[in-house]
Amino acid sequence: MAQSSGQAVARRGGGRKRADAERNIALILSAATECLARDRNASMSDIAKAAGLGRVTLYAHFASREDLLRAVLAETIAEGTEVITAAAPEEGPPAEAFARVIRSCWPLLSRFGSLHAAAQRALPPEEVRGYHDEPMAQVERLIARGRKEGAFRADLPLEWLVTSVYTLLHAAADEVADGRLTGEDVGEILVKTLLGVLEPE
Amino acid sequence: MAQSSGQAVARRGGGRKRADAERNIALILSAATECLARDRNASMSDIAKAAGLGRVTLYAHFASREDLLRAVLAETIAEGTEVITAAAPEEGPPAEAFARVIRSCWPLLSRFGSLHAAAQRALPPEEVRGYHDEPMAQVERLIARGRKEGAFRADLPLEWLVTSVYTLLHAAADEVADGRLTGEDVGEILVKTLLGVLEPE
Repeated sequence: MAQSSGQAVARRGGGRKRADAERNIALILSAATECLARDRNASMSDIAKAAGLGRVTLYAHFASREDLLRAVLAETIAEGTEVITAAAPEEGPPAEAFARVIRSCWPLLSRFGSLHAAAQRALPPEEVRGYHDEPMAQVERLIARGRKEGAFRADLPLEWLVTSVYTLLHAAADEVADGRLTGEDVGEILVKTLLGVLEPE
Repeated sequence: MAQSSGQAVARRGGGRKRADAERNIALILSAATECLARDRNASMSDIAKAAGLGRVTLYAHFASREDLLRAVLAETIAEGTEVITAAAPEEGPPAEAFARVIRSCWPLLSRFGSLHAAAQRALPPEEVRGYHDEPMAQVERLIARGRKEGAFRADLPLEWLVTSVYTLLHAAADEVADGRLTGEDVGEILVKTLLGVLEPE
């Protein structure tokens, strides 16, 4: 979304105009992520202000709050996918690999606070879920490997296990964002909870 | 909500008017539950049509779709609370009591389909959660008893375990409503998943 806006500007203008547009889009995405992580109801005005830009500039790049949310989701989830890849889910015993994946992506999820809740409120749930296709596929491959190797339970549908992981990860982020889960090491709480779901009885 | 509307009408009119109002409110709540269970985006017009009433009558009882959703939530969750009470969560071994509770309330949750998703889309999440205070307190007491008796894990925060149960129950209802979880005995899938979360390693 952000790139295509940048490209459209590039087609219309010269190098300077393009550099300005790219800088503004980066400012907007960063401000939007920060504002929505803190306050799921953050408005376009809040975001423009945090980015140090006018509302006209903001709307020139993102026609609606929904469009901006889509761009922020795409960017933050791409970051999550990279973090999961870096944790090498395909290596080593499945339960250890899974714990490694959760420990590496939890700080990101936690930092994004109420962003997912903001998206769920503003966009259709199937669209929000669709943005998570790639990280969910990574988790699905790891769970499937664990089932094959006998480390994870095979008596429940694979897709349900993936949904359980996805749901509990975001529930934990909501709990932290809403101040219901504090002070504890939430990453470790999640590892224990999710391995409880995945490991055989 | 429904009762207070009925009472307001009663104060204004006689017995016949009051009986009509009560009948209409019952028709509306039943139609709204059915429509929203099937389609999270069901509109006030859809609901009026399903109830066999005009939009004017519908709006006379419920000023907005949000108000109607609140009344439907309050009613369906009260039904859930009764079902949990009837399952006697305070009796017998905690894991068995928990399985009994899930098996008894799952058909209800499944029947309500996308109703919870509709509420989550239209109302603030803390409000939707607030309506669940009573059933969540029932589940919390059962989990606390299980921890005391050594049947459930005590190394994770109690409130997080309650949130995990609440979240996974509604995630399963969403999966069924959206056709991603079908054909299997979802109640049993839930019992296994949730006991996986609750029982010690």
